[in-house]
Amino acid sequence: MTDATRDIEALIELMARLPGLGPRSARRAVLHLIKKRGQVMAPLAQAMARVAETARECAVCGNIATADLCEICADDRRNTGEICVVEDVADLWAMERGQAYKGRYHVLGGTLSALDAVGPEELGIPRLVRRVTEEAAREVILALNATVDGQTTAHYIAEALDPTGAAVTTLARGVPVGGELDYLDDGTIQAALRARKAF
Amino acid sequence: MTDATRDIEALIELMARLPGLGPRSARRAVLHLIKKRGQVMAPLAQAMARVAETARECAVCGNIATADLCEICADDRRNTGEICVVEDVADLWAMERGQAYKGRYHVLGGTLSALDAVGPEELGIPRLVRRVTEEAAREVILALNATVDGQTTAHYIAEALDPTGAAVTTLARGVPVGGELDYLDDGTIQAALRARKAF
Repeated sequence: MTDATRDIEALIELMARLPGLGPRSARRAVLHLIKKRGQVMAPLAQAMARVAETARECAVCGNIATADLCEICADDRRNTGEICVVEDVADLWAMERGQAYKGRYHVLGGTLSALDAVGPEELGIPRLVRRVTEEAAREVILALNATVDGQTTAHYIAEALDPTGAAVTTLARGVPVGGELDYLDDGTIQAALRARKAF
Repeated sequence: MTDATRDIEALIELMARLPGLGPRSARRAVLHLIKKRGQVMAPLAQAMARVAETARECAVCGNIATADLCEICADDRRNTGEICVVEDVADLWAMERGQAYKGRYHVLGGTLSALDAVGPEELGIPRLVRRVTEEAAREVILALNATVDGQTTAHYIAEALDPTGAAVTTLARGVPVGGELDYLDDGTIQAALRARKAF
């Protein structure tokens, strides 16, 4: 085995660690990269090196940043009185794509999990409570996933925020826009019916 | 949008071009990389840059190489009298994993396709014919995929090799090792029955 093959094997192994890629799809991806090494592979390697060097966590909200503050926390036009709690940066991005929220965020980085030894400290919940008090936030929106873990974590946060006096809200449950009733699960139908509104 | 976000967006866009990843899974992969930027992202960027710089095509067989000759063509212990024709480097790797073949290869880089304007010249078929003559190869094994395109290409190559006098063979068709009849397609069952052997 020459150095070259070892380099390629090492690259495949690293690629296979990415979520959504296994050993087989990592091989395919690497072959594709080698075929397009000029147009895709070299730019990708550069982009990756650049992000690896500059990316870090926002000291305030946990979002991805390149300075101490992320661009949302550093943006004066975002409302300071509202904090939206999300599980992950991917959820923050999803909220931002919605373009409906003008406040700031708190990224938990996961959910409470006794099994994985993830407690309130790991998710920065005491830090969130301090921040809500210090910034005198009016409202904390719990935008956690509608899973058992997400909802357990939401309940814990709501209780922890009780002394701060901030209004704690959560995203509405119902039929997704464009959703067909026939394809929805029973839980969503029940939630949508319970939260029905005057037409 | 700061430079940082632009860098991350650019990285997601490049990742989304990989086979097996779409925009959504590219976002997930990039988030994962940023979270593990020390252990995974920086080494991956380095490995990618190294391979992008060194990888090229073997001048003889079309395999991935770092010198003019790939390590199989440069290996004296590999039989020179046998050439195995494969569609892609991934297929060469699959043959090598089998550890049963001790000859050399010819990588086509695709199949004949009138629609995509891929002719014999693009697949290096004239070069293969010259090579078989020059090396006085005894046998050419057509290890093309059992698809319509693969088999059309195999027939074309077999005809082109006719004047060289080399024996042209192809991989056996039959029940895969560990395969259950109930899950096999009709074509495989028919091929396995037609090629049945004394027990």
